[in-house]
Amino acid sequence: MSVTTNATIASFGGKLLKLSHAATTTKCEMKFNLYLPPQAQTQKVPVLIYLSGLTCTAENCSEKGFFQHGASKKGIAVLYPDTSPRGLNIQGEDDAYDFGSGAGFYVDATKAPYNAGYNMYSYVTEELPQTVFAAFPQLDSSRVSITGHSMGGHGALTLFLRNPGKYKSVSAFAPITNPINCPWGQKAFNGYFGDDQQDKWKEHDATELIKKWSGGPLDILIDVGTGDNFYKQGQLLPENFEAAAHDAGHKGLNVRYQPDYDHSYYTMASFADDHVEHAAKYLFA
Amino acid sequence: MSVTTNATIASFGGKLLKLSHAATTTKCEMKFNLYLPPQAQTQKVPVLIYLSGLTCTAENCSEKGFFQHGASKKGIAVLYPDTSPRGLNIQGEDDAYDFGSGAGFYVDATKAPYNAGYNMYSYVTEELPQTVFAAFPQLDSSRVSITGHSMGGHGALTLFLRNPGKYKSVSAFAPITNPINCPWGQKAFNGYFGDDQQDKWKEHDATELIKKWSGGPLDILIDVGTGDNFYKQGQLLPENFEAAAHDAGHKGLNVRYQPDYDHSYYTMASFADDHVEHAAKYLFA
Repeated sequence: MSVTTNATIASFGGKLLKLSHAATTTKCEMKFNLYLPPQAQTQKVPVLIYLSGLTCTAENCSEKGFFQHGASKKGIAVLYPDTSPRGLNIQGEDDAYDFGSGAGFYVDATKAPYNAGYNMYSYVTEELPQTVFAAFPQLDSSRVSITGHSMGGHGALTLFLRNPGKYKSVSAFAPITNPINCPWGQKAFNGYFGDDQQDKWKEHDATELIKKWSGGPLDILIDVGTGDNFYKQGQLLPENFEAAAHDAGHKGLNVRYQPDYDHSYYTMASFADDHVEHAAKYLFA
Repeated sequence: MSVTTNATIASFGGKLLKLSHAATTTKCEMKFNLYLPPQAQTQKVPVLIYLSGLTCTAENCSEKGFFQHGASKKGIAVLYPDTSPRGLNIQGEDDAYDFGSGAGFYVDATKAPYNAGYNMYSYVTEELPQTVFAAFPQLDSSRVSITGHSMGGHGALTLFLRNPGKYKSVSAFAPITNPINCPWGQKAFNGYFGDDQQDKWKEHDATELIKKWSGGPLDILIDVGTGDNFYKQGQLLPENFEAAAHDAGHKGLNVRYQPDYDHSYYTMASFADDHVEHAAKYLFA
């Protein structure tokens, strides 16, 4: 459970810590970043988990997402996990940008060979928070929210919807909301679960999960850019998620179609404050 | 004078334009970025020029500096030039990170072979703004401020101090303030001017220039991180600049030594709003 501090960087009055630990769920050394706002010096602070998208590590959003700006003002720590195990030496794991390393899809793989460590669901929901809360007592383990981008938006929505009460709130940027019906999701779920495991696929599909949600009123903030090529190509399918929420009678889904915004961190930076504000509403309720 | 638009990216309610043009001063195609705030759709907006540091292009600060955040609120365009000519095929120009390409030092070289295009002083003070104001009539050429980081902080200070009245305000992050007395500056000035041109060196040294300033009251904001390795190594020498300003009777120099902050864009992002605010005070005076 021990955590190694590889760098400490001053940021918006707080500290961005570049950390690593030997993870048992993913069977490798995992890097992650943790932003401690200035308030963490004198009080317990809640945590916002930010899940990154395909190809990313903990670094991208730490540098370009602008979450530290709002988190510093509100007094919220931000936890940036990596997107997959690294260096497991599974044949082919580094061959594609949308499967294997950098593309763990926040599931526990059941199909060989990826079941030998591609357990990002257990890692993000259990091992990483346990590790972090043990190492940083200034974090309040009872107040955790979650957000993410693209594949990480899929992760945020599915982890929230699978675990009622675990997270105080959820939001997402350009999330993959219906992976069983888009090329990225089908490729990933086929590789991690197998194509004969449709029930398993549905357990990690936000559009399927929201149909069954019984955890109380929902208040989900989603930003999708209308200039996002992956949205245009049908990888995100937020309309399917909206339709499922509507059919199930959930009124608290706020999908904002932001004119011209693309799939990049420029979009995250532009609306990060709104998503921190959304989390703060519940973390400090 | 024609400008090519290579990309248009939505950012903080405005547009970040990735542009290029055939520059005569630097004898090559030059790339640069221009952020147009939302206000530029309906009114003339002033311009803040941001000069980048060693190794950087127009991209780094556009992605990681968060100037767009404050500029969007205030209604200020941000112009991000490149840091040198590119591809002139001068022998050795790509050999070092601190001289040649990516390291133009905002001077007009007089020594061969770099006098064949390393004219970043003329480019930034004359050709680029003329090009930009001709192409974008929504920019107000009468209201321009300047800022920059490291080598770009040197550029901002020296361009301001050499041209009274040209810029409404100046600020800098971790600037090289006394290049004639630091290794980076000595190497660059030797290469661009020659070691027998001490008077020329002084013309591009902020500490020397402030001794002779007679352009009226100064109000200069500078942030330097105490965790900045280049500050610790004596490359920046802000104390020399402060002493010279003090000896010359200039009271308006505000050097903030920011505890633990380093030389990276994390520092810029943390204080970008303050520097935009500083510029806005004069751009909207």
